[in-house]
Amino acid sequence: MNNKMRRTDRQLTDEETIRLFREAEYGVLSIIDENNMPYGVPMSFALCENNIYFHCSAAGGKKISSIEHCKNASFTVVNNTQLLPQQFATLYMSGIAYGMIGIVRDEDEKRKGIEAILHKYSPDFIEKGMTYIDHSIDKIYVLKLEVEKMTGKGRKAK
Amino acid sequence: MNNKMRRTDRQLTDEETIRLFREAEYGVLSIIDENNMPYGVPMSFALCENNIYFHCSAAGGKKISSIEHCKNASFTVVNNTQLLPQQFATLYMSGIAYGMIGIVRDEDEKRKGIEAILHKYSPDFIEKGMTYIDHSIDKIYVLKLEVEKMTGKGRKAK
Repeated sequence: MNNKMRRTDRQLTDEETIRLFREAEYGVLSIIDENNMPYGVPMSFALCENNIYFHCSAAGGKKISSIEHCKNASFTVVNNTQLLPQQFATLYMSGIAYGMIGIVRDEDEKRKGIEAILHKYSPDFIEKGMTYIDHSIDKIYVLKLEVEKMTGKGRKAK
Repeated sequence: MNNKMRRTDRQLTDEETIRLFREAEYGVLSIIDENNMPYGVPMSFALCENNIYFHCSAAGGKKISSIEHCKNASFTVVNNTQLLPQQFATLYMSGIAYGMIGIVRDEDEKRKGIEAILHKYSPDFIEKGMTYIDHSIDKIYVLKLEVEKMTGKGRKAK
């Protein structure tokens, strides 16, 4: 699953990488806009097996026009950063998932994606959240990144 | 300076955006690799006027091969995130800088960039840092993103 890295001492195991993606509060979705400019957008998300689900407004905007132009995407998460000023270094764990992104058109999968996000971020408000989803599902898009490769690395305290 | 956004109520002023970039501990650099895949890399950085400086190993690697392939880049910072589980929302401030990225070849500017990073991250260890820079400057690359556009947005507590 992991890509080759030069600093193998900093490579996370697959299990550590998956845990990092499960625990990260948000990540940055990197896509490519119509002018071939990389566009990095902070996004809430939920990892479900090999897919990462996001949600956004169905009103359109730069995210949607970009992924309609190019489906290639990566998604970057960072956790446990700690500056070490005296050592001119930073402790961190980071992960990158690569794949194709698109709008989920299937209604069942759209619900699955948004419910996964609800369970991740609002586990104590599921009932209220389901009502909220019922009322707003037509106004949102659920996006799916089908993960083809995932890498993780970290610089840990010695 | 700011790009048009749909939700103007969430747009940060230029001053707020610059402050966000000054205060952010790290950001995600989005570039495009040789396979036209977006590549989002977490990076320490320093903002100096209209330039963002980064440093990395001169040993090469995916960052360098990507920017040699395509100079288009964006750099995304996020700050002050706060989950609001009951409201199915997150408070945050985020900024994106767009521009061209390249390796700094001029020795004086290379020093300026790395010293800006030293002053940002290790203000109490300048002397030790300057010695460290003297010993390691040949082993690092300093990268410069020439910022052409910067946008900031935020969802604040009401």
